[in-house]
Amino acid sequence: MNQFIKRLPFIVMLCCCLHSSFAQHEPRYVDASSLLIVGKAKTTDSVYRRIDSIDRSPMPDAVKRLAQQSAGIAILFETNSTSIRTQWKLDGEVHMSNMTPIGHSGLDLYCLKDGQWQFVSVGRPGTGTQQSQLIVGNMDSSLKQFMLYLPLYNGMSALQIGIDGQATIQKPAKPGINQSRRVVVYGSSVVQGASAGRPGMAYPAILQRRTGMDVINLGFSGSAKMEPELATYLATVPADCYVLDCIPNPSPEQIRERSYPFIKSLREKQPSTPIVIVETIFRQNGLWDRKIGETVRQQNEAIKTTYERLKAEGMKDLYYIQSSQLIGEDHEATIDGIHLTDLGFMRIADAILPVIKKALAAKPKKTH
Amino acid sequence: MNQFIKRLPFIVMLCCCLHSSFAQHEPRYVDASSLLIVGKAKTTDSVYRRIDSIDRSPMPDAVKRLAQQSAGIAILFETNSTSIRTQWKLDGEVHMSNMTPIGHSGLDLYCLKDGQWQFVSVGRPGTGTQQSQLIVGNMDSSLKQFMLYLPLYNGMSALQIGIDGQATIQKPAKPGINQSRRVVVYGSSVVQGASAGRPGMAYPAILQRRTGMDVINLGFSGSAKMEPELATYLATVPADCYVLDCIPNPSPEQIRERSYPFIKSLREKQPSTPIVIVETIFRQNGLWDRKIGETVRQQNEAIKTTYERLKAEGMKDLYYIQSSQLIGEDHEATIDGIHLTDLGFMRIADAILPVIKKALAAKPKKTH
Repeated sequence: MNQFIKRLPFIVMLCCCLHSSFAQHEPRYVDASSLLIVGKAKTTDSVYRRIDSIDRSPMPDAVKRLAQQSAGIAILFETNSTSIRTQWKLDGEVHMSNMTPIGHSGLDLYCLKDGQWQFVSVGRPGTGTQQSQLIVGNMDSSLKQFMLYLPLYNGMSALQIGIDGQATIQKPAKPGINQSRRVVVYGSSVVQGASAGRPGMAYPAILQRRTGMDVINLGFSGSAKMEPELATYLATVPADCYVLDCIPNPSPEQIRERSYPFIKSLREKQPSTPIVIVETIFRQNGLWDRKIGETVRQQNEAIKTTYERLKAEGMKDLYYIQSSQLIGEDHEATIDGIHLTDLGFMRIADAILPVIKKALAAKPKKTH
Repeated sequence: MNQFIKRLPFIVMLCCCLHSSFAQHEPRYVDASSLLIVGKAKTTDSVYRRIDSIDRSPMPDAVKRLAQQSAGIAILFETNSTSIRTQWKLDGEVHMSNMTPIGHSGLDLYCLKDGQWQFVSVGRPGTGTQQSQLIVGNMDSSLKQFMLYLPLYNGMSALQIGIDGQATIQKPAKPGINQSRRVVVYGSSVVQGASAGRPGMAYPAILQRRTGMDVINLGFSGSAKMEPELATYLATVPADCYVLDCIPNPSPEQIRERSYPFIKSLREKQPSTPIVIVETIFRQNGLWDRKIGETVRQQNEAIKTTYERLKAEGMKDLYYIQSSQLIGEDHEATIDGIHLTDLGFMRIADAILPVIKKALAAKPKKTH
């Protein structure tokens, strides 16, 4: 007993050290909503949704549902942690034959290195909706800025980011995405991100990393049919440039009827913001299935007619990208004829980026 | 009644016409095993398996299992059908966070057009193991040659191809893949095809289409650790060129121990066949996780040492491709740091193809 009493101060000290060491290594979680959120059209009532419930209410049902998926939203933070963990809660389990689970329900982490965003690692969803994972470990402890992309085809109700117990985490002092410069992309599943391997490979995300501007993903899979409610909403979303990549889903008749009033309405409310119109990529299976091929030809003819009419009427700051310029000529850029793989997304980003740059170069900077 | 009797011949004729028209449009199915099968190392007891049960028996358990998956196997046929349907039976339901269902369990159809293989469409797996689908319709009725790739990460016990009732289907008169010229690729999940969007985008398949040679996929996910049993088997597979892309999975120690005897053994049994050694791609998350990065560096150092030893000993027809040449420098070619997307697969095919061509150009043609 005397021996024990003699050794007590040493034992207490050892316990303290062990506890401190354990606490240092035990991860500490912060709510992602306390960090910087980019890729959002506007502030929303539920933080990881793309469109606010009030803004959603007049929209078609499919858009209402898809607007709650987190495509294009990302969390920016800086930390000196040597590891990054995440806990996230998905709206539901998703099964898509042309998407990876990492793409539709996972996370994608980048780090700013020498002024460039570089891929780090991914969060892989398992079964169920509660997910928890070490994304990366064993890093050095220098202060780094990270960007974490959220799922493309699922919604999230909660997200926590875990760091080393003693590390710091906060909003970046100098964000690697400049939220005062904004490109807003309205379109179909191709914009939403089918079939990117991981969330950061949807083309709006690639454009965001390459330009350092905030690029807003308003891609609605199977939808984006230029309904008047969407024109009304789009005009309220602050932008330095609008990209309209919304030709894949409406029928040729719908494009003939809707595209002219849609663009006119946007132009009236945003008189000097550049608008880039993108033809639909030529569905690769439409080179074999003559019915599909004919529909695609008619879709692009219809939007071209609208573009020419608007130009003839003297509309300024209007740009047009043809189908033939988008995804190369080897027919290998899609997973299923229409949805782009990472190969297709790199190609379409290469095609659209110079047009956006040209459009922006011609305009003075806005203040949002 | 008289009226009916009077009209009977007309009614019979109408029924015949309707029946004939219906029969013409009702699809007719043929067993794919009666057509031309490419991408097989050797003949096997079960037609859609990569390795025969007797050859498999001495192999490690993981390889035994993976060798039953159909990666790299494709069916060649010619038909004048305006539509192509498939019915296929999978071994089981697969869930992989880094693969699309089309990639792991689907089908991928190409057509030979002006001497080039061009993507047509895919077969999408649903739930369950029995799958049935229209792959493409509304084609013209000219005679065309097709290649149908089988699933990358699943096995198949049955496959039927459906054509228009009156159309013809047979083995191609002049196959677009020359089975007398063979490249055999032994490797990891990257060779097997993780994470190609669809089966035809695994890099052995890309090489097969680009060269018109038969390219055999001996990729074994998480395996390919250069066990002696694999060296023994590989030497029995006829080849004009062996590609060894088997560095990602063995530890640096295993590479130091096994790579020299593995390549020596293959060379002894195949004294003049070119061997192309490929370093592992640098795991992109290893640029952040220092432990992973150090392991990859040691893996590549170990295989480089073996290569230099073999060269110093005078081994001929040995080629080496460094990690830095494989997938570009933008860090965007993988889904999760190690597994290539279609973007990565195009890049690695671009890197490996010229080395294979150089290796083959230096050798006289073999007869298999």
